[in-house]
Amino acid sequence: MATRKTTKPPKSLAGWPGRQRAIIEGVLPQVDGGRFAAKRVQGDEVEVRADIFTDGHDRVSADLLYRHVDERKWQRTPMTALVNDRWRGSFTVDKLGRYYYTLEAWVDHFETWRQDLTKRRAAGQELGVQYQFGARILREAAERATKADAKRLEAWASKFERLPPESEEAYALAEDLALAALVRRYPDPETVKRLNRELPLVVDRERARFSAWYEFFPRSVTDDPARHASFKDAEQRLEYAAEMGFDVVYLPPIHPIGTTFRKGKNNAVEAEPGDVGSPWAIGADRGGHKAVHPELGTLEDFRRFRERAEALGMEVALDIAFQVSPDHPYAKTHKSWFLVRPDGTIQYAENPPKKYQDIYPFYFDTEDWQSLWAELESVFEFWVEQGVKIFRVDNPHTKSFRFWEWCITELKRKHPELIFLSEAFTRPKVMHRLAKLGFSQSYTYYTWRNTKQELIEYFTELSQGAGREYFRPNVWPNTPDILNDYLQVGGRPAFVVRLILAATLAANYGIYGPAFELSENTPREPGSEEYRDSEKYQVRAWDLARPDSLRDLIARVNRIRREQPALQQDWSLEFHSIDNEALIAYSKSAPGADSILVVVNLDVNYAQSGWLTLPLADFGLTADEPFHVEDLLSGARYIWQGPSNFVKLDPHGQSAHILRLRRRVHREQDFPYYA
Amino acid sequence: MATRKTTKPPKSLAGWPGRQRAIIEGVLPQVDGGRFAAKRVQGDEVEVRADIFTDGHDRVSADLLYRHVDERKWQRTPMTALVNDRWRGSFTVDKLGRYYYTLEAWVDHFETWRQDLTKRRAAGQELGVQYQFGARILREAAERATKADAKRLEAWASKFERLPPESEEAYALAEDLALAALVRRYPDPETVKRLNRELPLVVDRERARFSAWYEFFPRSVTDDPARHASFKDAEQRLEYAAEMGFDVVYLPPIHPIGTTFRKGKNNAVEAEPGDVGSPWAIGADRGGHKAVHPELGTLEDFRRFRERAEALGMEVALDIAFQVSPDHPYAKTHKSWFLVRPDGTIQYAENPPKKYQDIYPFYFDTEDWQSLWAELESVFEFWVEQGVKIFRVDNPHTKSFRFWEWCITELKRKHPELIFLSEAFTRPKVMHRLAKLGFSQSYTYYTWRNTKQELIEYFTELSQGAGREYFRPNVWPNTPDILNDYLQVGGRPAFVVRLILAATLAANYGIYGPAFELSENTPREPGSEEYRDSEKYQVRAWDLARPDSLRDLIARVNRIRREQPALQQDWSLEFHSIDNEALIAYSKSAPGADSILVVVNLDVNYAQSGWLTLPLADFGLTADEPFHVEDLLSGARYIWQGPSNFVKLDPHGQSAHILRLRRRVHREQDFPYYA
Repeated sequence: MATRKTTKPPKSLAGWPGRQRAIIEGVLPQVDGGRFAAKRVQGDEVEVRADIFTDGHDRVSADLLYRHVDERKWQRTPMTALVNDRWRGSFTVDKLGRYYYTLEAWVDHFETWRQDLTKRRAAGQELGVQYQFGARILREAAERATKADAKRLEAWASKFERLPPESEEAYALAEDLALAALVRRYPDPETVKRLNRELPLVVDRERARFSAWYEFFPRSVTDDPARHASFKDAEQRLEYAAEMGFDVVYLPPIHPIGTTFRKGKNNAVEAEPGDVGSPWAIGADRGGHKAVHPELGTLEDFRRFRERAEALGMEVALDIAFQVSPDHPYAKTHKSWFLVRPDGTIQYAENPPKKYQDIYPFYFDTEDWQSLWAELESVFEFWVEQGVKIFRVDNPHTKSFRFWEWCITELKRKHPELIFLSEAFTRPKVMHRLAKLGFSQSYTYYTWRNTKQELIEYFTELSQGAGREYFRPNVWPNTPDILNDYLQVGGRPAFVVRLILAATLAANYGIYGPAFELSENTPREPGSEEYRDSEKYQVRAWDLARPDSLRDLIARVNRIRREQPALQQDWSLEFHSIDNEALIAYSKSAPGADSILVVVNLDVNYAQSGWLTLPLADFGLTADEPFHVEDLLSGARYIWQGPSNFVKLDPHGQSAHILRLRRRVHREQDFPYYA
Repeated sequence: MATRKTTKPPKSLAGWPGRQRAIIEGVLPQVDGGRFAAKRVQGDEVEVRADIFTDGHDRVSADLLYRHVDERKWQRTPMTALVNDRWRGSFTVDKLGRYYYTLEAWVDHFETWRQDLTKRRAAGQELGVQYQFGARILREAAERATKADAKRLEAWASKFERLPPESEEAYALAEDLALAALVRRYPDPETVKRLNRELPLVVDRERARFSAWYEFFPRSVTDDPARHASFKDAEQRLEYAAEMGFDVVYLPPIHPIGTTFRKGKNNAVEAEPGDVGSPWAIGADRGGHKAVHPELGTLEDFRRFRERAEALGMEVALDIAFQVSPDHPYAKTHKSWFLVRPDGTIQYAENPPKKYQDIYPFYFDTEDWQSLWAELESVFEFWVEQGVKIFRVDNPHTKSFRFWEWCITELKRKHPELIFLSEAFTRPKVMHRLAKLGFSQSYTYYTWRNTKQELIEYFTELSQGAGREYFRPNVWPNTPDILNDYLQVGGRPAFVVRLILAATLAANYGIYGPAFELSENTPREPGSEEYRDSEKYQVRAWDLARPDSLRDLIARVNRIRREQPALQQDWSLEFHSIDNEALIAYSKSAPGADSILVVVNLDVNYAQSGWLTLPLADFGLTADEPFHVEDLLSGARYIWQGPSNFVKLDPHGQSAHILRLRRRVHREQDFPYYA
């Protein structure tokens, strides 16, 4: 009676994958459930982790599936169990561009059978029926196998049925790894659970993860502030930057500068005759975002400049600022891309009550958005055609997120080598969204993180938080917009500290020079973070040969970064305890390379000392053996022992150690004649 | 030239929602991206939080949309901004069953305009063109509005155009809340971002969140262990349980018990004549999961028993164990539901090398799974027809997760009042999966968490971790399977401690009695967690009148739970510092009710004392005013002052305080004649 109802399966079971007993959960990396891509660079081993389990005592097996976007067929690699139902698998990404990965898991009857057989045998149980079971599983797999494999499986099944169950030969066959691998290929497809998502991954060039940027205004490569420099003049600044060891030179916008409402020196509302204007007031009768400012030269000059940079081992990054001066051709040809006021004029930029009449923002709410987006994308395409592969995007957070997502995805689909740096100094969720939707690198709050506690908290978040899957920090101690209090007050010693912190805490960093290496620290007025006589509004002639220049220190730091793989990535960062609030200590490590330990005195006035505590085992060291410590900045060498060692740093001498932990010190036992 | 390309929108923009500028992220509650439902009970206010923002400086608005599964139309309520781009909204769930919720957000041009207008006005700027802007926004909204609303919006727009821009009247109109509310209803639908998911929520009866369970074996309600009791006999145990204040009585399986391979007393492999067998060996010639064990009585007797329980304010929870004895009718009629061995017999339960020949597990890999699932679901339906609304499910983790997901979803669709307790004492991810897929309550590791640190860690995880959205703990100090070391060693004082911890740490708790209240603590053999002479295999006659019984204490604790709303939920749990490792202190609170502070001495041998530190402000108290503290267990009252107060508890006197924090003590200023 009870069973009569059950002959008709209920409608609610239609399409229900009732025989998929394996569960896959908690897959990492995974950004917003696969809505966005995690980021890696070429050559990385991508480690995927997931919770994989089933009901009861059966064994599960699982595969990691992955493919490059250009490939249709999935490649597979088995996952292996760690602890607590957590599994791991990995694959290496050799190509640029998008990858996808997903997981499959299934209850593995053969593995369950093998495992149980071993236990039964150890307990001395009768095994006859068990080998019959084994044969049944093999024959079922054979039905799903290729002809050749089916033959092998059938042969094995017959042996299980034929061999005496207590024989060593039967058991050896059950333990045969080739057999296990063969059966594993043919689970019943109805029982295989496939993760319901294909998770995306973006693979960039290594430079997306490790880069040193030097920003300068090409128009200032001059001896005389009255003489506007050209790209030709600026080539000498390339050599200078290359000598300091930078690999990206980044230029503020190089387009024609508008004259209507042009700002004067120090952001004066009215320009004086001869004032050069802000490079961010883009567009004039000579052209807009696809043209070169005539005083800098021609497109041909720019190309030569770029080639010179590349010959010196550097790339040129362009600043793309999507806004126009009232003189920009767009303002005449495409009024639909702007907000038109009831009086018929174009709405200039405002942040009420502030007005920026020299700038028209694009109006992303326009119903003509498709043509606007297409045009903006074509700006990047234009510069890609000129050989530019890195873009620093100005204030992306004031343009539609959806635009960026489409634009960057499109561009990287065609040119996966492109790198985009997001210049958004804004609220955390906004900055993270931009990184998620596709920016390769992001500016950070580093400029405003100066105390020990601030630095530890912020860099722990950046290097260990969930956001590290997509948010690659690019840290700057200064920019043409930001001269932080710490630099203003601390002078040259502060610049040293901020340089070393930036270059060793983050694999991507940059400085705005020559203001930085010359410790330029005068604000426009007290309380301001703007530079006085800012290059944003005027040409500056810099004395690069000044004896107090930090250029040699910078060159040394960049050389250390290039030589030490530990400093070329962010995720291994670990802070260490040191008993002085003015001293900060941290280390980075990379597989197969020396660990690097950095200690910095944040006090720009006084020498500070303290006892540093190291987790020796993490560095492969023990407490009872002394070890070498070499300061890569000064060349000094120390012999340390045990977890606690003494450090002293003086802002008027040496503000920081960049230490290589070498190996234990030689002992008498090591001496060839000792034994 | 630059713009020529842009006239044809690129194909990649087809279907792209280019004008949706608002972003919705990080929505909570959300279980596995909406794959599973969060859980609430009837009458709850469901608070939804999300990150909502847009690019630039524009204002966004957002609505929370929600509906009961039986309703097609969404209801709406506005979200409000908190800090850091986090927003909140809420709705109250009045009905049982599933709800869905989602979010909408859009750039709100009118709100942006209003906000900017205020700033411009404060700065003394010219406002004429601004009111024209405002009128434009109103007219655009009017185009999307109902006829009546359009008229009102048009009228307002005309006023903006007509009134002198500097007039108070114009500004008052801009600030009009009715106007704002009206415009808010008509955003341009093309610009409205709807979250791409409808997130599910399951609303249960309040008992799913707050319940006190009493488990007993009805066959043991007898004076003579040789006489198997019936449901009729067991009615007296209902009165006893009701006097102790329980609201759920839970019975081990009540079905016919198999005789083949029946286990004897103390789990002996061979039963003696007269041995009653384990109720979990389900099924005999008299029937299976839809029948009543003849020695307990008839289905009619069970119905009378259930009705008696309900008359006493309690519900009967049945134990559903999906496994069969070799004598179960299924084993004859539905061999396809079991694993058949190569020798043609049904595979009995095993965990190699252990064998459980008295039990056949169902084979969830069977190709005949649909009829199996349907039959198992019909078992629940059968008992629902008999008036049962609570099921304790035996070992759900040894049956397919997909089965449970389907089965519970189906049953709760038809009977949203049902409550399912998952009896899975297994690995954490497995227990969580069962809770996610639909079990209303879950057994926990409480039994094995006995030290202060263990309790703090585990209950912080349960009450504050992300799992609390779906995992409702039901904590048991003992079960027929588990007599923990702490109880074995500590005797009666340990039972007191474990009772008070269970009943106050968790809103859902239960005990297995009378073994619990009689402090039964003899293990089958040293080192075992099984009871000696376990009721699982034999009838026990209990002396309920023993003077050392905990029945009065249990009654008092259950009364306190019913009177104190703070103890009826889990999420407000907070642990407090107390300077003695043997003492544990925590509080719970509920809106509009007294806060309850519990202090327990975990040491079952010695009196312990210590200084307790309270966050007074959390309780609405200040350090400079004394306050009343009333022990609801003993009736004792204390006057405390400041955050630190002294506590002393003696296992041979009183092991615990359950304190109600009242109000400050009267002072002379309160005395009517003082002033």
